[in-house]
Amino acid sequence: MKKLINAPEQVVKEALAGMADAHADLLTVHYDPDFIVRADAPIANKVGLVSGGGSGHEPMHGGFVGKGMLDAACPGAVFTSPVPDQMLAATKAVSAGKGVLHIVKNYTGDVMNFEMAAELAAAEGIEVASVVTNDDVAVKDSLYTAGRRGVGVTVLMEKIVGGAAEAGADLAEVKRLAEKVNAHGRSMGMALTSCVVPHAGKPTFDLPDDEMEIGIGIHGEPGRTRVKVGHAADIAAMLAAPILEDLPFKQGDHVLAFVNGMGGTPLIELYLMYNELNKILAGQGITISRRLIGSYITSLEMAGCSFTLLKLDDELTKFWDAPVLTPALRWGY
Amino acid sequence: MKKLINAPEQVVKEALAGMADAHADLLTVHYDPDFIVRADAPIANKVGLVSGGGSGHEPMHGGFVGKGMLDAACPGAVFTSPVPDQMLAATKAVSAGKGVLHIVKNYTGDVMNFEMAAELAAAEGIEVASVVTNDDVAVKDSLYTAGRRGVGVTVLMEKIVGGAAEAGADLAEVKRLAEKVNAHGRSMGMALTSCVVPHAGKPTFDLPDDEMEIGIGIHGEPGRTRVKVGHAADIAAMLAAPILEDLPFKQGDHVLAFVNGMGGTPLIELYLMYNELNKILAGQGITISRRLIGSYITSLEMAGCSFTLLKLDDELTKFWDAPVLTPALRWGY
Repeated sequence: MKKLINAPEQVVKEALAGMADAHADLLTVHYDPDFIVRADAPIANKVGLVSGGGSGHEPMHGGFVGKGMLDAACPGAVFTSPVPDQMLAATKAVSAGKGVLHIVKNYTGDVMNFEMAAELAAAEGIEVASVVTNDDVAVKDSLYTAGRRGVGVTVLMEKIVGGAAEAGADLAEVKRLAEKVNAHGRSMGMALTSCVVPHAGKPTFDLPDDEMEIGIGIHGEPGRTRVKVGHAADIAAMLAAPILEDLPFKQGDHVLAFVNGMGGTPLIELYLMYNELNKILAGQGITISRRLIGSYITSLEMAGCSFTLLKLDDELTKFWDAPVLTPALRWGY
Repeated sequence: MKKLINAPEQVVKEALAGMADAHADLLTVHYDPDFIVRADAPIANKVGLVSGGGSGHEPMHGGFVGKGMLDAACPGAVFTSPVPDQMLAATKAVSAGKGVLHIVKNYTGDVMNFEMAAELAAAEGIEVASVVTNDDVAVKDSLYTAGRRGVGVTVLMEKIVGGAAEAGADLAEVKRLAEKVNAHGRSMGMALTSCVVPHAGKPTFDLPDDEMEIGIGIHGEPGRTRVKVGHAADIAAMLAAPILEDLPFKQGDHVLAFVNGMGGTPLIELYLMYNELNKILAGQGITISRRLIGSYITSLEMAGCSFTLLKLDDELTKFWDAPVLTPALRWGY
């Protein structure tokens, strides 16, 4: 195992310490229970937004804490759900009396623990609503999931809903918008290589030197198929087709195209994949009105990429464009 | 070779096409000769800033074209210098009568070709000044370099000098500031793995499963030493010590700390390495006043990182903080 770490059990805490020092203007890190929170939380007259999940997907979620996006994020151990104590502490830290929304990716542990935290928070008088993302079209059920997995749409939801919460939307409105983002978005990913979880010390799965996995999950969960590594144009088609059919997206639609790197894929390849996606969509009369290209929801050092398409309307576009100031996304401030 | 590409000879053009579509609000891509230029170039009453080099280091340099940073960038083939025709065309495209600065990394081909382009531009009546970055303390001469290699300081220079040019500084002033950034900055990098140049189809160098290369160049050029992979704390010390001794940096200094990923290293490890660097500097009474953490000057999918320290004063800090709006760096707009 080749990693820039000291010891597997210290990775998350030490990376958090780095974030705490680097971004002290934006966020504060609390330990035991671990959570990252906006430096100015709680914000008066604002719905609090809390997300979280296993570590190893950076910058998600901690890198999205800041103005116009999340109020707090709860990092679990690598690829392991955070515990309810973290979620409860984060919820209390961001509660300003206007309610708190939990943004949860659809993995069994995350869903269960966020539900428990919501009950505990309710018992302390905090109104909590929840939304679960399940945008991955690759498989119906998966290794850690009943139903579809939550992947790239989570990033877009945190930005868009963050914009609405910053603008003063109430809890019901924020929840409605979050559900709309999930309903309008679809994703699919692929891997050229596995990643290595620090505690495991060896690749999560074996992939021959000439094969790739289409429909991979962000923890290396099996996808739809393994095939020989092909051309970027063919890979793009294999990812785009199931997404386009599923919603379905159709001629005349305007979309946000999110081309995401899995952590070990260089930016030059992501721009090349974006170019392929752009050609596919243009061929179907679909217009890319907004885009995000980079490694935002990752699987440690896995090589590969995912596509997420979000069907846009004026409301979604407005809140995507709204100012944001976080470690990983910043514009308009 | 596992890459998200169609064919080695198409990688650069296809990635450029992706950039052109994705960032049409900021930049325009010209082909044959290839260069990326600000969409609003030339800017009246502004010194033009042109950089460039081999592709494979993305987002450098094309991702730094935009307001408050570069006016144009010339991408060569992967790890291959662009040719004078590209540099001349870019220089002419950004020339507004106030002169043009070439920011050149110290590699033999880049230096020679930018010199030729400067002469050609001068023959057409454009005043050109040049600055060469050579901040890599690892080795005195290298595979493609007489003298030290230009690495991370280039990114910081493009931002800081870009701020000054945007504020109206003249060519002599911009050149003075660029030389100051180079004089105030030092870097050193390391690799856990090699990268694979598309045309070569195999790793640039062989590195055993339990070894790392300290002092690596951004094209995989040999560094100072190969040692067993150790703890992040020890790796950070091996990178920081030669940097700190060289300037030298000393107690009371304020620095910009740039922890850069080589392309295949996940962000969680970069924050962990930043934490180690922060502890080392704190122990020597050096304060990190500004920081940049992420993969900004890369070597395709190489795993590893580099540290760059830039000694700050009020002038450098002011232009680092100035607004920037490019694909890869954006704040203040």
